[in-house]
Amino acid sequence: MTALPTMDRRARADRVRNAVAADGCDAFLVTRLVNIRWMTGFTGSAAMLLVSPDDMLFVSDGRYAEQARQQLGDAGVVAEIAIGLSLAAQRDALAAKAKSVARLAVEADGITWAQQRTFAGEWFPDAELVATEGLVDRERQVKDEGEVARIAAAAAIADDALAAVLPLLKERPTEREFALELDSEIRRRGADGTSFDTIVGSGPNGAKPHARPGDRRVEEGDLVVIDFGAKVDGYCSDMTRTFSIGAPSPTAARMLEVVGAAQRAGVAAVAAGVGVRDVDAAARSVIVDAGWGEAFVHPTGHALGLEIHEHPRVASTVDALLVEGNVVTVEPGVYLPEHGGVRIEDTVLVTSDGCQPLTHAPKHTTI
Amino acid sequence: MTALPTMDRRARADRVRNAVAADGCDAFLVTRLVNIRWMTGFTGSAAMLLVSPDDMLFVSDGRYAEQARQQLGDAGVVAEIAIGLSLAAQRDALAAKAKSVARLAVEADGITWAQQRTFAGEWFPDAELVATEGLVDRERQVKDEGEVARIAAAAAIADDALAAVLPLLKERPTEREFALELDSEIRRRGADGTSFDTIVGSGPNGAKPHARPGDRRVEEGDLVVIDFGAKVDGYCSDMTRTFSIGAPSPTAARMLEVVGAAQRAGVAAVAAGVGVRDVDAAARSVIVDAGWGEAFVHPTGHALGLEIHEHPRVASTVDALLVEGNVVTVEPGVYLPEHGGVRIEDTVLVTSDGCQPLTHAPKHTTI
Repeated sequence: MTALPTMDRRARADRVRNAVAADGCDAFLVTRLVNIRWMTGFTGSAAMLLVSPDDMLFVSDGRYAEQARQQLGDAGVVAEIAIGLSLAAQRDALAAKAKSVARLAVEADGITWAQQRTFAGEWFPDAELVATEGLVDRERQVKDEGEVARIAAAAAIADDALAAVLPLLKERPTEREFALELDSEIRRRGADGTSFDTIVGSGPNGAKPHARPGDRRVEEGDLVVIDFGAKVDGYCSDMTRTFSIGAPSPTAARMLEVVGAAQRAGVAAVAAGVGVRDVDAAARSVIVDAGWGEAFVHPTGHALGLEIHEHPRVASTVDALLVEGNVVTVEPGVYLPEHGGVRIEDTVLVTSDGCQPLTHAPKHTTI
Repeated sequence: MTALPTMDRRARADRVRNAVAADGCDAFLVTRLVNIRWMTGFTGSAAMLLVSPDDMLFVSDGRYAEQARQQLGDAGVVAEIAIGLSLAAQRDALAAKAKSVARLAVEADGITWAQQRTFAGEWFPDAELVATEGLVDRERQVKDEGEVARIAAAAAIADDALAAVLPLLKERPTEREFALELDSEIRRRGADGTSFDTIVGSGPNGAKPHARPGDRRVEEGDLVVIDFGAKVDGYCSDMTRTFSIGAPSPTAARMLEVVGAAQRAGVAAVAAGVGVRDVDAAARSVIVDAGWGEAFVHPTGHALGLEIHEHPRVASTVDALLVEGNVVTVEPGVYLPEHGGVRIEDTVLVTSDGCQPLTHAPKHTTI
């Protein structure tokens, strides 16, 4: 892998501060670990981050004393680091820092009800807890250059890994065997791992969009849906290809053709300023026109980044416009129990006048 | 793998019902997916379960219509299944069922504050939401025969996988390469996957208890800490072994000896009726007596099952007695930055008069 560009974490903290101020709050307690990672570079499994107008307090436990100092330092983050060996010590550090805060924003979708009760009753009894949702997540929707580079690096590893293991399909592996080879190849090429549990759905299993790889052996005449991604420095890629083992049946050939055309239509519709529902409609109408509208049972796509599913979803029910820097998938599919499934998916970066695909594996369809 | 015994899910539902009634509630909305899996066998990523005195309502979305029917049926669970294509449809199904409920128990540690606000304001406006914590989790602490068999099967796969890949350590792999081979071997042997991200900490990296495998190559004279587990039908195993590559230094040899003795002392202390803090003390005192008390920076162990970390923790700060059917780890360690780390861990089943180890990999220490 080539070196990845550094990311400007300070600019991110300032974007979050502006959002907090716009909500009329004096400080913001970030508890979703993925948001803490985005703002500070910290990758551990326990931390909280108190964002004040002029500074930040990062709190974690004894396991992460060294790691926190190193990762926040490497990321150029200016924050006070408090390591509390007990939860009570962490509480005391946060409570001291927040003692003059009147309105404390918390992530209502990132704390449990039990935590909220503890915060309100014991940790911050003098502050008004303000329920916010998606405050950091919305900022994360627009990817900066460093983030795009990481998603692109993950996508390139996924492309190469698929190319390396694809010949194995001719040896009629089980779904599970093929998934293991693909996952191992992704890790061998330097990824952190896979971005979600790899889907390998062969024959009738391909008709279940969320099939887990099983002990079914790939057979002549199968359609095989392979949906997978790599993760690099925390960032996910996502791609689906569908292959026919041997010549496809007439129906299978038509499914591959229709879904391919729908996917190209969806990608062609993507641009800054376009509604996500219009992208969905562009892909969906091709499938509806082919008479398979009922067999396309999921939305056309979703944004991704540090998480495999981020907002906005590319769905008919979502009222959102794409903006430059969004990274979304376009993944229409047709699922027919008697013929199997076809799904074709790319991850694309939204640009001012269109999009730039980040996944590049060939879309040839017969093995 | 041999066939796994079936599990009595109906008995589990009755245990939960008794706990709900003891809390003075009329019904219980289960939202933690791991608890829903334990009660129904459902393994999907979205569901809610409303437990009433005489029946249960299982709610999920369109992706899981077929899977829910199959898994609940296979598990012998008697429940009404409502598939709501939208969240509103799911809400309506639950609200209709709960319309005469006065006190509705929810999992305060299993719903976000945002969900609680939605439940209270929109979904169940006429019910009093009662915050419960650990209501199902406490029932899960005592494993039945089927659960023990699954943990044992996972542990056996982990034992065999380690034996298969251990010779590779002589070829001086990187930590990452060795972890990949171990993880692949676990999957090849039929496990669902690993029960957590495998830890391979060599040389100085072994002194960080939560080291992620990196590009450091294993070297002559290293101590190498390998902490990993397999997952079978959702159930986790957990085991750590530490190896010296070539003859250990005098200090490393002493660390291996002391931690080995501490681990045996901890295992020897385990029995139904014994306090978890007494097990911790049994292991810890051996290390303290050797002068390394400060270098044993974590509790002695934890329970496990469907989750890798369950209650009770085996810690000096926890006031709980072990009971028959608990499955816990015993895993003391000593971490010295200039020498590396040593941790030795087994998973054991608590019995009336002692315990039965479920992990069996040899504890020889030199490769």
